[in-house]
Amino acid sequence: MKYVEFDETREFDLILMGRVAVDFNPVDYFKTLAESQTYKKYVGGSPANIAVGLARLGKKAGFIARVSDDRLGEYVVDYFEKEGIDTSCIKKAENGEKIGLTFTEILSRDESSILMYRNMAADLSLSPEDVTEEYIKRGKALLISGTALSSSPSREACLKALQFAKNTNTPVIFDIDYREYSWKNKDEISIYYSIVARDSDIILGSKEEYDFTQRLIKEGLSDEETANLWEKAKIVIIKHGKKGSTAYTKDGKSYSIKPFPVEALKSFGGGDGYASAFLYSLFEGKEIPKALEFGSASASMLVSSHGCSDDMPTVTEIEEFIKIKKQEYGESVTQV
Amino acid sequence: MKYVEFDETREFDLILMGRVAVDFNPVDYFKTLAESQTYKKYVGGSPANIAVGLARLGKKAGFIARVSDDRLGEYVVDYFEKEGIDTSCIKKAENGEKIGLTFTEILSRDESSILMYRNMAADLSLSPEDVTEEYIKRGKALLISGTALSSSPSREACLKALQFAKNTNTPVIFDIDYREYSWKNKDEISIYYSIVARDSDIILGSKEEYDFTQRLIKEGLSDEETANLWEKAKIVIIKHGKKGSTAYTKDGKSYSIKPFPVEALKSFGGGDGYASAFLYSLFEGKEIPKALEFGSASASMLVSSHGCSDDMPTVTEIEEFIKIKKQEYGESVTQV
Amino acid sequence: MKYVEFDETREFDLILMGRVAVDFNPVDYFKTLAESQTYKKYVGGSPANIAVGLARLGKKAGFIARVSDDRLGEYVVDYFEKEGIDTSCIKKAENGEKIGLTFTEILSRDESSILMYRNMAADLSLSPEDVTEEYIKRGKALLISGTALSSSPSREACLKALQFAKNTNTPVIFDIDYREYSWKNKDEISIYYSIVARDSDIILGSKEEYDFTQRLIKEGLSDEETANLWEKAKIVIIKHGKKGSTAYTKDGKSYSIKPFPVEALKSFGGGDGYASAFLYSLFEGKEIPKALEFGSASASMLVSSHGCSDDMPTVTEIEEFIKIKKQEYGESVTQV
Amino acid sequence: MKYVEFDETREFDLILMGRVAVDFNPVDYFKTLAESQTYKKYVGGSPANIAVGLARLGKKAGFIARVSDDRLGEYVVDYFEKEGIDTSCIKKAENGEKIGLTFTEILSRDESSILMYRNMAADLSLSPEDVTEEYIKRGKALLISGTALSSSPSREACLKALQFAKNTNTPVIFDIDYREYSWKNKDEISIYYSIVARDSDIILGSKEEYDFTQRLIKEGLSDEETANLWEKAKIVIIKHGKKGSTAYTKDGKSYSIKPFPVEALKSFGGGDGYASAFLYSLFEGKEIPKALEFGSASASMLVSSHGCSDDMPTVTEIEEFIKIKKQEYGESVTQV
Repeated sequence: MKYVEFDETREFDLILMGRVAVDFNPVDYFKTLAESQTYKKYVGGSPANIAVGLARLGKKAGFIARVSDDRLGEYVVDYFEKEGIDTSCIKKAENGEKIGLTFTEILSRDESSILMYRNMAADLSLSPEDVTEEYIKRGKALLISGTALSSSPSREACLKALQFAKNTNTPVIFDIDYREYSWKNKDEISIYYSIVARDSDIILGSKEEYDFTQRLIKEGLSDEETANLWEKAKIVIIKHGKKGSTAYTKDGKSYSIKPFPVEALKSFGGGDGYASAFLYSLFEGKEIPKALEFGSASASMLVSSHGCSDDMPTVTEIEEFIKIKKQEYGESVTQV
Repeated sequence: MKYVEFDETREFDLILMGRVAVDFNPVDYFKTLAESQTYKKYVGGSPANIAVGLARLGKKAGFIARVSDDRLGEYVVDYFEKEGIDTSCIKKAENGEKIGLTFTEILSRDESSILMYRNMAADLSLSPEDVTEEYIKRGKALLISGTALSSSPSREACLKALQFAKNTNTPVIFDIDYREYSWKNKDEISIYYSIVARDSDIILGSKEEYDFTQRLIKEGLSDEETANLWEKAKIVIIKHGKKGSTAYTKDGKSYSIKPFPVEALKSFGGGDGYASAFLYSLFEGKEIPKALEFGSASASMLVSSHGCSDDMPTVTEIEEFIKIKKQEYGESVTQV
Repeated sequence: MKYVEFDETREFDLILMGRVAVDFNPVDYFKTLAESQTYKKYVGGSPANIAVGLARLGKKAGFIARVSDDRLGEYVVDYFEKEGIDTSCIKKAENGEKIGLTFTEILSRDESSILMYRNMAADLSLSPEDVTEEYIKRGKALLISGTALSSSPSREACLKALQFAKNTNTPVIFDIDYREYSWKNKDEISIYYSIVARDSDIILGSKEEYDFTQRLIKEGLSDEETANLWEKAKIVIIKHGKKGSTAYTKDGKSYSIKPFPVEALKSFGGGDGYASAFLYSLFEGKEIPKALEFGSASASMLVSSHGCSDDMPTVTEIEEFIKIKKQEYGESVTQV
Repeated sequence: MKYVEFDETREFDLILMGRVAVDFNPVDYFKTLAESQTYKKYVGGSPANIAVGLARLGKKAGFIARVSDDRLGEYVVDYFEKEGIDTSCIKKAENGEKIGLTFTEILSRDESSILMYRNMAADLSLSPEDVTEEYIKRGKALLISGTALSSSPSREACLKALQFAKNTNTPVIFDIDYREYSWKNKDEISIYYSIVARDSDIILGSKEEYDFTQRLIKEGLSDEETANLWEKAKIVIIKHGKKGSTAYTKDGKSYSIKPFPVEALKSFGGGDGYASAFLYSLFEGKEIPKALEFGSASASMLVSSHGCSDDMPTVTEIEEFIKIKKQEYGESVTQV
């Protein structure tokens, strides 16, 4: 059954809004950030990773963003263009804002942390004037990444896009993507997350992210109550980290999945692989269980690789990964 | 017919959110502001005026606000308390923000203008932490004044209150009260006005204010289309200045009224008299035409007086005013 | 003996830099600010008062300042022009900065306080670009008012003018005029006050103001040590409030004076009367004791009047005042 | 002849104030910054490099600075401590300021450029409260790096240290180190550079840097006129890039030197090598020509190495370098 209808006449499979960043991951890892001397540079930022993920899977993405007016800004735009992502709505920041940086510290397979450079971050300078109804209606769907709501004027750019999505019957996908930085207080988080959530067709987030979203509405909801709270949403995905995730659908059904077993190198990037492969599957018209399996496979592949964007897999690679893992661990490897 | 149900067990008739200011009106008017030498000080600010108006009409108001931590802040709180308004949710600004000032220039009966002091205005420092669900549910209704949405953190304080009003089934009254200052751009205005409007039970505004609100949704709507756009609203009042105003009700009916003829002294304050007397009438269970007449009378009384808050009329004074005007101009004096 | 040489070929007697403000003094005084209802508007701000004072005494002043781009900004420029002060270097603030306001609370003859509106004050937006060497050298002397050093870019405008005064051999008068607001910490005060003081020819300040100035250099100096510390200064005036003041001159002499006995109405404005009448006397080539007497008389006249700028006396009025006071209290009325 | 007397009883040879940063230099250079994928991390920032340079030469440095409260802040403090630099006056930034980053683009041996991350830079949050007279007087000399004057509160921290240096007879070394970023306008540069320059005993800068400094005083000065302008300075060093540099001494003499011939890898870092080796020589009591030769050698060594701080040479290495170069090019290799 198809839970969300996509207008197949539209040019882009998905339009994404939010941050593009640059990741620096240590080459000489399993050390502290202070000790690691050499770093490899990648395009990063959750929605940027999802866009690259979709592109690798053969889908056409468009991106609305602001990047810095410098060589690193050029770098990410060049990278996107090489991946086939439409960059016509990526503008340069005008007041010296800089593209966000993420330095990764990989202490061990289980412990990794990040150090962010986000003072006057270029992505949060995204302005309502950058968003047009014409562009929004070129996409089969619009993905809003939650961090873009954390500060003005990016916040208003997203809310304007949300209105235009309503005006043009464009399904909205809300990837909650909570990051502590930039938010002024917990009330703001709940206020803006819930404004977007209640107009979204698909919501993706961890249990904690839903709790942040619902804090001013009703606290302590079970997963099922959470899924029911968002009346307009057709699919509500709630993630529980290594325990797996569940998709709740409008018709009252739910589908769960466990991660594929892998030896992780770092503890992030998985969510972006998951989102891109799951959405790819929906665009392809696959059923929810298949979509979850695809998402879960991509997630597992990502946490065991050095980069995020640069290591996003192709369809063939994901299929091959699933095949190998099932051969190794059995067909029911991801069953909850 | 009662369009909005008020929970009669609640302590306050109305809780208002928004700015309290201090007005300085020239005693030696019909001159430029530069030439006027002597000024009289009044409590001002649209929602503050409405609160005083309701208090004069015997209703109990509670006010959520921030005022400056100085003698003028003390002045307005004292004034409110003397009028019987609950000030338990009025806090002092903490970072040197100052209560807004309005200097009035009255050049002639037709021409008046204002000069605002609103840099780091205390009212816009209203914070989400100042808003509690306990306080919101002590009111039969919540009035949000649009200017409080123009800037953070006051904006989020209002959006939090809006959520609490929903949580507690408290009817929301949205007085659009558009003021140019503080807003960063037109998109912001439409975004935040429409977020509040779509959850409001009663909306009051001028034709221009609705146009600002609807700019990102649909432009060029007729008054009737405007009234229909806000599906949740039970009463939508659209004002056309000296031509009068119309109340559109949920059941598809509409009621119009013209202002009472008066010799105006200044061109502002009328709207606050209108709102307070109209809302008073609703709380009293009066029918719409009676409520409009009461509102219109108070508006006319206000524009012909020197102050705003300080000249808010009592029930007897309004009734007397209506009686005299009808004697002078006939029963149909306000018929469109 | 002439301690400071003024170039008599120059067009303006004095060029002043610093704030112009608007004062609101209660007409119904001997009440709290909250209780006083009616206020009279005056041009205010220490250097503005001195400029008006000099103009009333027949001297030509030029003023470098920023005022708000509104009716109150127009008001002060108009007022200056009527007084004959050159306003060609007064510009309008460009980013919404507002002219500072001072509301006076006169509780009794001994107790008065002020409430300032100085958030984003126009005077502190004075910019280095507003200061030209051409203008500075049109003045026989340059007066820098200390509060103008409290914040950038006004601070740099003053330091630039100081350099231009050196370049053009223009004597510098430093009126310390310490006000608590705007300064970030005590170190800043000492740093910037001492930079200006050490290049000044005449310094005026209270004992406390010199202590603020010298805090990072040497604390606990006696008045005589203070006078000696500022090697370049020809005249160092140290004020001790009601106990009188002393002028220390370069040649090691000192001259003291007591205030004239008056019934004060408010506790401020005196210093500006003092400065203007003292400087007037220097420009006239009078000896220090005569100059002090003139300053002291003007000070006493000011504290017993309702306004500051508007009540600045003429030469005849000061002479008359001195004559009457000496008749009443004897020739030695101001002798220490 | 000794131009500057150092108090040999003091604990530190030099106390430095200014920025500590982190440099990321590409390992795969001769490409654009976008194309270079792998970067090596170094401690950077001009005064930090000089401090490390002095430490490598056996001198004891103390550093006054603010670094970020994160792993990169820890990294630079650790690094300093390993080099033997006193870090007791290095504090953590308190409002989320981040240590400055410099990404280097090395396109060819002649063309290199840098991309700075300096929004809310930690070094510029250095506060007057971080500076004590006790610490200043533990140093034989104080070095102020010009960029620390570009913004408050770091600016005032330097001016406070300058006053304390005067109070304690501590010679001041001013390394102009002009960087475009952070300065608001050219007037500010001249104002603050000249305040420090006129109280300095040794000034180091390029011709262009002196022009910036003197812009409001007198433009178009020759090198000799520049040297004479700064009356208090005992040694004024004016650099002309590849053409060499000249030291002007208080007694009217001057000494010039040309760089040693090397194959450069990057176009920066040389100045810091120069300053550290020149100052080392002064502390050692060497004559000016010897000090210049030592400085020039270190400069040449630095521009041909990958890092800055990490490649600072020891005394033996510099002596060896000079010996080899003289063998290769003759004794007069650096004669102008």
